[in-house]
Amino acid sequence: MVRWQPGTRARLQAVALQLFAEQGYDRTTVAEIAAAAEVTERTFFRHFADKPEVLFAGQDGFLAMFVDPVTAAPQGTAPFELIRLALDASADFFPEDRRGWSRARQHVIDANAALGERELGKLATLKARLGEVLRERAVPEPIATMAAEAAVTVFHLSFAQWIAPDEDRPFAAIAHERLDALTSLVHPAR
Amino acid sequence: MVRWQPGTRARLQAVALQLFAEQGYDRTTVAEIAAAAEVTERTFFRHFADKPEVLFAGQDGFLAMFVDPVTAAPQGTAPFELIRLALDASADFFPEDRRGWSRARQHVIDANAALGERELGKLATLKARLGEVLRERAVPEPIATMAAEAAVTVFHLSFAQWIAPDEDRPFAAIAHERLDALTSLVHPAR
Repeated sequence: MVRWQPGTRARLQAVALQLFAEQGYDRTTVAEIAAAAEVTERTFFRHFADKPEVLFAGQDGFLAMFVDPVTAAPQGTAPFELIRLALDASADFFPEDRRGWSRARQHVIDANAALGERELGKLATLKARLGEVLRERAVPEPIATMAAEAAVTVFHLSFAQWIAPDEDRPFAAIAHERLDALTSLVHPAR
Repeated sequence: MVRWQPGTRARLQAVALQLFAEQGYDRTTVAEIAAAAEVTERTFFRHFADKPEVLFAGQDGFLAMFVDPVTAAPQGTAPFELIRLALDASADFFPEDRRGWSRARQHVIDANAALGERELGKLATLKARLGEVLRERAVPEPIATMAAEAAVTVFHLSFAQWIAPDEDRPFAAIAHERLDALTSLVHPAR
């Protein structure tokens, strides 16, 4: 249930998550993770720089996935449309077969303050990078910063809903619902 | 320059801020703050529960100031208008003679991870409380949560700009500029 991709890397992530859930993140060592995945510690460190990376690996790829469509969009694309492009692209990062893993991962992160901070730091980086890219596209301030904040907020709320118990809609549908909520908040239908 | 209200309480806050800036937050004791303000430690603790409270006191009052106009607004007031009411009310918390104190306070907070977390925690509380109040007014989800996020984001960005070097506009003008940025982001003028 917590697997979402084949191979050693995914197996290491799956068994790590299982161990974190069973005995706590802090009490689990890299040696135990490697043993449970039937590889050497050396192999673990070929895939992950350190223990937290088991949970955060791939985030650079995610950042690129989020920001690249904004960079690549035709000149003159409205900032709100750029946000939609970023969110649509980010949906590819959360296919159905990853949902179980993401839920289990979030439980581990929510139980550990240091991991929670690392997660908030990643979101702050995402906001900062998106703001930069928007300013490079000549989106003026304070619109660029508001747009980056709005995009990452919609992303964050959508992700939280995507992993909520009983939620089964795809990520993109949830994100669109939140973008629509933002639209109707600012300009309610009469 | 860092004073913003008369009396013992304000004097304690002013000298504490001075000491934090000069010798660091962690290295400053309550005894030193009390001595510098020429009061006893007992007097300090009549005004503040602990050392961090010198920086965070009054936040409950701020929360009420932010949320109360939302509770009090006439039935049928649109959610975006409720946000504007909250931001306008919060502006009263940031009069011109408080700006120097707020700038100095932020320098202390930015230099100390634990204080930074406490500040983020206060913002999270503000979001959660505003979301509750909006839901009590029958604002549906996900609009209530989006509105609370947007309001606190506008507040946070406005405060950061209000204390920026060389900024001299009042808080309310800065907040309105950011609300307008959100409006034009979502519905650009053609």
